Amino acid sequence: MTISARRERLRQQLAAAELDAILVSDLVNVRYLSGFTGSNAALLVLADDETPVLATDGRYRTQAAQQAPDAEVVIERACGPHLAARAAEAGVRKLGFESHVVTVDGFAALTRAAGDSCEFVRAAGMIEGLREIKDAGEVALLRLACEAADAALKDLVEGGGLRAGRTEKEVRNELEALMLVHGADGASFETIVAAGANSAVPHHRPTDAVLAAGDFVKIDFGALVAGYHSDMTRTFVLAPIAEWQRDIYNLVADSQRAGREALAPGVGLKDVDGASRQVIADAGFADNFGHGLGHGVGLQIHEAPGINASAAGTLLAGSAVTVEPGVYLPDRGGVRIEDTLVVAKRPELLTRFPKELVILS
Amino acid sequence: MTISARRERLRQQLAAAELDAILVSDLVNVRYLSGFTGSNAALLVLADDETPVLATDGRYRTQAAQQAPDAEVVIERACGPHLAARAAEAGVRKLGFESHVVTVDGFAALTRAAGDSCEFVRAAGMIEGLREIKDAGEVALLRLACEAADAALKDLVEGGGLRAGRTEKEVRNELEALMLVHGADGASFETIVAAGANSAVPHHRPTDAVLAAGDFVKIDFGALVAGYHSDMTRTFVLAPIAEWQRDIYNLVADSQRAGREALAPGVGLKDVDGASRQVIADAGFADNFGHGLGHGVGLQIHEAPGINASAAGTLLAGSAVTVEPGVYLPDRGGVRIEDTLVVAKRPELLTRFPKELVILS
Repeated sequence: MTISARRERLRQQLAAAELDAILVSDLVNVRYLSGFTGSNAALLVLADDETPVLATDGRYRTQAAQQAPDAEVVIERACGPHLAARAAEAGVRKLGFESHVVTVDGFAALTRAAGDSCEFVRAAGMIEGLREIKDAGEVALLRLACEAADAALKDLVEGGGLRAGRTEKEVRNELEALMLVHGADGASFETIVAAGANSAVPHHRPTDAVLAAGDFVKIDFGALVAGYHSDMTRTFVLAPIAEWQRDIYNLVADSQRAGREALAPGVGLKDVDGASRQVIADAGFADNFGHGLGHGVGLQIHEAPGINASAAGTLLAGSAVTVEPGVYLPDRGGVRIEDTLVVAKRPELLTRFPKELVILS
Repeated sequence: MTISARRERLRQQLAAAELDAILVSDLVNVRYLSGFTGSNAALLVLADDETPVLATDGRYRTQAAQQAPDAEVVIERACGPHLAARAAEAGVRKLGFESHVVTVDGFAALTRAAGDSCEFVRAAGMIEGLREIKDAGEVALLRLACEAADAALKDLVEGGGLRAGRTEKEVRNELEALMLVHGADGASFETIVAAGANSAVPHHRPTDAVLAAGDFVKIDFGALVAGYHSDMTRTFVLAPIAEWQRDIYNLVADSQRAGREALAPGVGLKDVDGASRQVIADAGFADNFGHGLGHGVGLQIHEAPGINASAAGTLLAGSAVTVEPGVYLPDRGGVRIEDTLVVAKRPELLTRFPKELVILS
């Protein structure tokens, strides 16, 4: 599916919502619909015109022409207001705008620029909804991102990078460097390396804490490839392992498998969460799993759908999601196991690093 | 200066603006005023109460208590609306809000939560204004960030990392890995490595283009240390050098020196830009320098002040800024030289990698 096919889907939605056009302000959405990756841009998509108008500033003149060859490019620093005025001039009466992205000050500038002929209509989440279903090109990039992360973690472990005496930060730095070696453009979010009691903190940031014998080492990380994010968590044990560690590792692994096996098009998002959560609750650890089961992943590390106990809606074929239950015992340690998968009748596992318990000596 | 001293300055501004409180929504501003670095938070600062209220969600319970020990921490996913209601309950009549950050949908939620007793007053940029002047702790972190970048570039060059046959991406990956080795938490923005004609693109993203003899290699990059960003550009030549290359290198170096020498507290921002730009204009290349001279740097890679031809205002002692003129000859190549400095009667140069022309064999 080409980028123009994405816009075609959007234009069908505009027609269905009786909008004459939409002003796209979110930069990730601009990228999704045009290919342009600059840091200052807006895009005007008209319901009855195949050619979108991309506004950006002078720094990006060449880049915009290269990345968005089928858009009309306008060089203008105040991208949004310029396109709002342009929409009004083109006779747009009902203009969708991204009310979840445009700021209060930004909206004042848009309405000033457009004048009175144009009615602004909230269209929050319209494009994020389209992005929930990945096309073939997107899945290919997600695969590459997950492969880079898999390969980096394999190198780290096989090279002895996870051992007593190293700091969390040293492990992070080596892992991030290895992702670059394996073709990543960078880390897809702030890498979590959490050793010992720190592993009980769901979103711990790496410190100078030293890995020690008997520690859990929880690593939550991902690679960024051409704008697409991978997301994976593995938890290791530095020998010797205690019985309680083996128990909660196996528990989380069982829960994670149940979550993966619940993935299918049409299944309720909260039912996927429930399938995984029930395993942990049955073992008496419901209070030690305090976050949602997963989230969509793509051009952003967190995107639609959210998979949690209060999520409405169902899984869609072609969406890419994480499944990441955890059990966290304060001041002792925690385990999380996370994969990224593409939803299908038979889901595709993108993060292929093994999930068997690994006890490192 | 401690974080509480930052809040004290803010509370003085609230009093001066006749605001009873400010609801801080921008996460960087929340960090600046509380120390908290989580990805979902808001902060309520009352004019007449030393203890701020920090709202975040359950993922960050432990982290918030650790990072913001002198704040009252409230666990609540809808941070902004919760604090807006809290402000109304506390009798706040005039509540400042960050109209440049809060979205149209977000503002609707805030006003719903606060009810009718509370008047919302736009306070865009109030905290960014405070952040323009760095305190001693901030300067120390900026120094560390610049040192990490300096050391990485030194290793790259001395290790032969800049040579014909390598790709732009390979150079970027090695440079970013070296920054991690030298203590960075990551790159402070997307590293630019631009070889040959690509160096004429001010914001080129690294590609698989191969470095070749006779190329300019322009590298614009920085390190992130504890939230603080460094920013530096150096341009090298792979031998043999052509006369036009030597000419524009020397021209940009002269322009950059003029810009640095113009830095002083109280000098007009546009006059600093002018001092540097005039050197390039006098040589007939005014049209080949199409961006502003510099920008503030700190918790964000671009922050106040902007240093450009249309900037109002003057330089403030203690602000950290870049000076980065460039000359870009389309389809041939370009040179940019950039430092980060702290403004003072005698400015402190933070990026200390040499700026003499280096011709690599």
